[in-house]
Amino acid sequence: MATLIAPDHPSAVEDAEALQKACKGWGTDEKAIISVLGHRNAAQRKQIRLAYEELYQEDLIKRLESELSGDFEKAVYRWVLDPADRDAVLANVAIKKISPDHHVVIEISCTRSPEELLAVRRAYQARYKHSLEEDVAAHTKGDIRKLLVALVSAFRYDGEEINTRLANSEANILHDAIKDKAFNHEEVVRILSTRSKMQLMATFNRYRDDQGTTITKKLLGESGDEFLVALRTAVRCFNDPKKYFEKVLRNSIKGIGTDEDALTRVIVTRAEKDLKEIKDLYHKRNSMPLEQVVAKDTSGDYKAFLLTLLGKED
Amino acid sequence: MATLIAPDHPSAVEDAEALQKACKGWGTDEKAIISVLGHRNAAQRKQIRLAYEELYQEDLIKRLESELSGDFEKAVYRWVLDPADRDAVLANVAIKKISPDHHVVIEISCTRSPEELLAVRRAYQARYKHSLEEDVAAHTKGDIRKLLVALVSAFRYDGEEINTRLANSEANILHDAIKDKAFNHEEVVRILSTRSKMQLMATFNRYRDDQGTTITKKLLGESGDEFLVALRTAVRCFNDPKKYFEKVLRNSIKGIGTDEDALTRVIVTRAEKDLKEIKDLYHKRNSMPLEQVVAKDTSGDYKAFLLTLLGKED
Repeated sequence: MATLIAPDHPSAVEDAEALQKACKGWGTDEKAIISVLGHRNAAQRKQIRLAYEELYQEDLIKRLESELSGDFEKAVYRWVLDPADRDAVLANVAIKKISPDHHVVIEISCTRSPEELLAVRRAYQARYKHSLEEDVAAHTKGDIRKLLVALVSAFRYDGEEINTRLANSEANILHDAIKDKAFNHEEVVRILSTRSKMQLMATFNRYRDDQGTTITKKLLGESGDEFLVALRTAVRCFNDPKKYFEKVLRNSIKGIGTDEDALTRVIVTRAEKDLKEIKDLYHKRNSMPLEQVVAKDTSGDYKAFLLTLLGKED
Repeated sequence: MATLIAPDHPSAVEDAEALQKACKGWGTDEKAIISVLGHRNAAQRKQIRLAYEELYQEDLIKRLESELSGDFEKAVYRWVLDPADRDAVLANVAIKKISPDHHVVIEISCTRSPEELLAVRRAYQARYKHSLEEDVAAHTKGDIRKLLVALVSAFRYDGEEINTRLANSEANILHDAIKDKAFNHEEVVRILSTRSKMQLMATFNRYRDDQGTTITKKLLGESGDEFLVALRTAVRCFNDPKKYFEKVLRNSIKGIGTDEDALTRVIVTRAEKDLKEIKDLYHKRNSMPLEQVVAKDTSGDYKAFLLTLLGKED
């Protein structure tokens, strides 16, 4: 379930006017921006962008970028984009880093549905005039390239049909690879990058039944290099995306300092999807409501915006 | 240009009635079937299937399969299918052979547009409840798997923008790999499987300017294993699909015996696209009209059907 609170039929024109007013003249009314955009779903935000363009012959996103700054600007920018376009931006930023954020690419590849991932690949091409897999391949090498390119290129079967015989034999292949510490074995990459999610669940379940422990735990027990970390991330994203996101949130706010990029990413990408369940998982796991921790770790408009997306009533 | 001759607005209902009449009772009127289906484009054939289903509560394709036989049946079956669905069938048949026909998978991956290939992947999933890349990966191994899975999974950028600096550096990478006979080098697979077709053309052109010979000629000069043959096929499909198809046709009918599968495949898949130019290339290259050679090498209804698709006036 979503945490986003959005009215059923807001007026895109009135919203665009409110945003223009908030941006007009000296200073910016950040609260007004939050109270509009923090309560509109993807389809509604799109209508607002269109209405704004028509009314003011100006790109709302560019205007907001010039009015806002810091983590708040970044969060609003990511939020206003269409989900597929946002993922394209997130992936591009992750790939182009000097030390690429492989986990962001894996997260997008493995937690989105096959159709959603395809939409990301379309949006990526429209924006960057390259394919996503092309840029991932050009910015990685060796085993990690093989895994990442295969994961982002996948257009998995999304139906219900599974093959239990296959789940059995592929659970054995995974077991043998882990036993031999041959994590980069091409069969491991093949299985994770081509099988449907339902089929992978059947394989992971079979692994657990046979081995008495989950494949995630087994992989976590291994100390590892970059590739093993990537592999673990992929398995966790397939196995239980909500649990995976809970952990990303937990890591982003634990200890001293906050990883604002990760915090923003999870809240912005999940607020319209399953942030309610992720929030509940967080509460259960950390004995503390997520909102309380976010409120403590962030400040100002950024804080107000995140809390709004987390479902705080104004 | 197409060779198919189709009227502008045929009546799907009248066509369905004519086909039902041709199939009714003892014996089948193959000529009537050819004179209808051999003159209808993909959209029109689809309308006929729908009209037939509605009129007779029967699947036209299944009915034709039960009425016809041999190479003629196979050709009609492939022709009646939607192009993306037909490619899915062709790929599946090629993959599932004891000795898989890699060139069919490469041909479909590299001569179809990015959107067409995507449609094939969708059709494949709908029909087989697996993804295309999943089945390719499960039926191949080693280097050939790396190449084929990457080629079928590609969703390339399809725009005009190219990067000449990149064409230069990647022409050098290809040159070094060929010089060192490291054809299976991961950079070779990366370049061929992720770059846009326009970018690949720029890279191949650059290669020719630098080396004084085409990459195709260079690769043909190498005696090679299965992988090298696959690589050559991919390069030829990108470089000049019409020339590639001319050669498939030439090989299918030269010498004693005919490769009906290859002959049918090229005629059926190209008749609505560019078979006119392929036919002209064939004539120029072999000093003999393609129709004449097809007429000599085939017989009966199969021959009549192929000649109809090749543009013969009734």
